[in-house]
Amino acid sequence: MLTFYYAPNTCALASHLALEHARADYRAERVSFATQQQRSAQYLRINPKGRVPALVTERGVLTETPAILQYVAQTHPQAALAPLDDAFELARMNAFNSYLCSTVHVAHAHRMRGSRWADNAAAQEAMKKKVPQSVGECFELIEREFFAGPWVLGARYSVSDMYLFTLANWLEADGVDPARFPQVAAHRERMRADAVVQKVLAVQQA
Amino acid sequence: MLTFYYAPNTCALASHLALEHARADYRAERVSFATQQQRSAQYLRINPKGRVPALVTERGVLTETPAILQYVAQTHPQAALAPLDDAFELARMNAFNSYLCSTVHVAHAHRMRGSRWADNAAAQEAMKKKVPQSVGECFELIEREFFAGPWVLGARYSVSDMYLFTLANWLEADGVDPARFPQVAAHRERMRADAVVQKVLAVQQA
Repeated sequence: MLTFYYAPNTCALASHLALEHARADYRAERVSFATQQQRSAQYLRINPKGRVPALVTERGVLTETPAILQYVAQTHPQAALAPLDDAFELARMNAFNSYLCSTVHVAHAHRMRGSRWADNAAAQEAMKKKVPQSVGECFELIEREFFAGPWVLGARYSVSDMYLFTLANWLEADGVDPARFPQVAAHRERMRADAVVQKVLAVQQA
Repeated sequence: MLTFYYAPNTCALASHLALEHARADYRAERVSFATQQQRSAQYLRINPKGRVPALVTERGVLTETPAILQYVAQTHPQAALAPLDDAFELARMNAFNSYLCSTVHVAHAHRMRGSRWADNAAAQEAMKKKVPQSVGECFELIEREFFAGPWVLGARYSVSDMYLFTLANWLEADGVDPARFPQVAAHRERMRADAVVQKVLAVQQA
């Protein structure tokens, strides 16, 4: 059985959705950010990065959303969560996921996690101020160039939809109006209506 | 034939090494950052992100280092550049690559690209100041937890070695002494001595 470590309102939602969609044999364990549990000695033995998500398998621990997403898809092929039979389409999926983790999530993180990149309060405030612009530009690019529709990759639903949904949930808090991105906004509503999404959100927010 | 867009001293080196190691049928095209060619209308039609690397295939353009690396490995299986037959090992590889793109490269980017995340000069200066610490912590974690040795994944050479080598080349400029990370430093020397690495570096620096 897999053990999946998550915290609510983090990017771990994407992997959680993938596990549930895949009907994986897993147990979800909440990590309390309020009590800094991600920095506890016990959790650092699981994930020395002190972050979520982490997926404990029989062979070891996996971290990083793009890696976990492809792993869940590959080990549960019946769920058809990724274009596993087509290297180019799989690369399109991974390029999208990689953009989310290295650029979109990073832009967002400058609102709350500025201390990772600068020590003084004024600099962190300056970072916070730019988040609506930088996150907004990322979503403009997604809307215009990378969202094929009706799903991220086109006709085929994939883990990229779960990952986009996860980050699109942060738009309002980042000071960005989702109405600027009609396709992304409509996609978010469709995802929210999905029974698996509702089930996982209920678990995470319980 | 593939067309590969790169600029010297960027993360595009990793994908360039993978293409060369795979003996791929490709042509390398330099993008001049000095003349802001990555922002030209012509280049933005290839890669609307205005970044390198970009790999033009017969089916479309691929971007993002982790996606390109796995794509080159999958489409050139004879080169054995990734553990393609083992979903867990492949996920370990992608977790490593994802950490490099979303955390290590991002920490480094705060030295030269602070304007992505804050507008004022003082904030950008504060970011620059923290780079030796944040990049240093990333490499400490790699050295201690994620470098199996003698190669990144253990006995098996992979695209992760090319990607780690690429980012490890920036340590001195980031104000971090590579001697703090004996395994990573020795790996970098072994990579530098590799004939394919020397060939690609000569092309990029010509």
